[in-house]
Amino acid sequence: MMRVLFAAPDALWPEWAPALTALAPEMELVREADPASIDAIIFAPGGPVSDLSPFVNARLVQSLWAGVERIVTNPTLTQPLARMVDPGLARGMAEYCTGWALRAHLGMDRYAQDGVWRNALTPRLAEGRQVTILGMGELGRSVAAMLRGIGFRIAGFSASGRAVQGAEITTDLSRALSRAEILISLLPDTPQTRGLLDADRLALLPQGAWLINPGRGTVLDDDALLAALDGGRLGHAVLDVFRTEPLPPGHPFWSHPGVTVTPHIAAETRVSTAAPVAVENLRRAMAGRPVLHLVDRGRGY
Amino acid sequence: MMRVLFAAPDALWPEWAPALTALAPEMELVREADPASIDAIIFAPGGPVSDLSPFVNARLVQSLWAGVERIVTNPTLTQPLARMVDPGLARGMAEYCTGWALRAHLGMDRYAQDGVWRNALTPRLAEGRQVTILGMGELGRSVAAMLRGIGFRIAGFSASGRAVQGAEITTDLSRALSRAEILISLLPDTPQTRGLLDADRLALLPQGAWLINPGRGTVLDDDALLAALDGGRLGHAVLDVFRTEPLPPGHPFWSHPGVTVTPHIAAETRVSTAAPVAVENLRRAMAGRPVLHLVDRGRGY
Repeated sequence: MMRVLFAAPDALWPEWAPALTALAPEMELVREADPASIDAIIFAPGGPVSDLSPFVNARLVQSLWAGVERIVTNPTLTQPLARMVDPGLARGMAEYCTGWALRAHLGMDRYAQDGVWRNALTPRLAEGRQVTILGMGELGRSVAAMLRGIGFRIAGFSASGRAVQGAEITTDLSRALSRAEILISLLPDTPQTRGLLDADRLALLPQGAWLINPGRGTVLDDDALLAALDGGRLGHAVLDVFRTEPLPPGHPFWSHPGVTVTPHIAAETRVSTAAPVAVENLRRAMAGRPVLHLVDRGRGY
Repeated sequence: MMRVLFAAPDALWPEWAPALTALAPEMELVREADPASIDAIIFAPGGPVSDLSPFVNARLVQSLWAGVERIVTNPTLTQPLARMVDPGLARGMAEYCTGWALRAHLGMDRYAQDGVWRNALTPRLAEGRQVTILGMGELGRSVAAMLRGIGFRIAGFSASGRAVQGAEITTDLSRALSRAEILISLLPDTPQTRGLLDADRLALLPQGAWLINPGRGTVLDDDALLAALDGGRLGHAVLDVFRTEPLPPGHPFWSHPGVTVTPHIAAETRVSTAAPVAVENLRRAMAGRPVLHLVDRGRGY
């Protein structure tokens, strides 16, 4: 048996608990217990646990979400921390990015429903269009693979510069931006990425570029984005993440014609595909085998 | 040498002639000559030739377009007729259909920019969504392959019922329609397809289905479509082809909120990818080898 603490908001229990225990009959999933008796912790922000120091025997903290910025910075965290890498989330993210990239690519918004037949331009094929992805981790690679299947030319920026099949990878951000007709940011929230897309960086984009940001809202300088839209440098911005969520009703993003706001729906963790990942990792931790998707605290993700 | 008549509108000459002659130095491409001296004809509607009977030695009429309804019905046509199957067109068509299918699938239009954060629904994955394609020829198979790459479940209706990898094929139209959350019509214009999507057939679709029609406008009963939208059966219609083109400014499609009009841009033949296909077919005809994409006059395509 392993005793696992479900340290997540109450609202998640009804869906997650049956899925987890059905997959792992050897697991005793509890919502409270003597901390020293806990073998591992399933964690999501907003739950009952903020001090992790009493869990002296916990071999793993398994996040339910991909983003871990609210737990990795917790000074009481001494246990190994694993991010959720949900194959359903990665597929959903790829579908979101591909759908919006095609909306940009096809110029869907060019055809106003005003009675004017505008067919002078032969649409370009995807093979002639570059999509640049910032952040080439699991999500970036999933997005790149789907876009590559459509035919787009893919460039990727990553800190590591690790090669990815079918994509041109660079560690040179300026270079990555300068040819990004469609820019997708999947960067995590870290001290290095905060405010990365500022006025100077946005000015490097080709005229009329689209920005799709389903990564983290802190990466973007909101005022610089609005200025880049007003100045015509940016064609459109599709934003799924924000510095404050929900995005406040009076925020200028809601009313700017160059911005589309979606309500943080690109990266949904789905219980059906994520629960098996959590169970696999808990079993690995209990057996002393290497844990998947371990967070590097130095990098913050 | 082969002498080929360019029987297409003048406007096409400047782009096509250099591309064709660069590919086939052995070809003498002419715009007029003694009809009996012509070995083959490159044809597009609206050009100088309407009577094909004097071209007694022409071994092939090669259409520049995929749709041949304006030439196949010409009673003076006795020569073999080949449709254009442009790989660039097929890719462009697949991009168009995939882009609009993703717009439907992702519910992009659900997120009105009105300050309301609507994130209650976890978006479905494409693997749980069926796209039904009417017409599984070259274009249908190209569209199916791209949608399959995204993850959609693909059903296809074709008169032949020929198997297609990764798609469930049926010759039963009612069955094909009844589970089509997203319906794509690529049917050609033939006596059998005219008015096929009428009130009875549209009523078979699941509630809220999207119709994407980049095939032929005659397949659709315009009034039945508007009634199906007003009655809520159809969620939205994306129409690229019409009974009259350009779509007249006063047509109700322009002002109906449930209709998106695009100006016949889904199936553009691109000279760079189509000219090699025409040249290959002309050479085949001259050498007495089997011609590609021969039109079956009984079927009409």
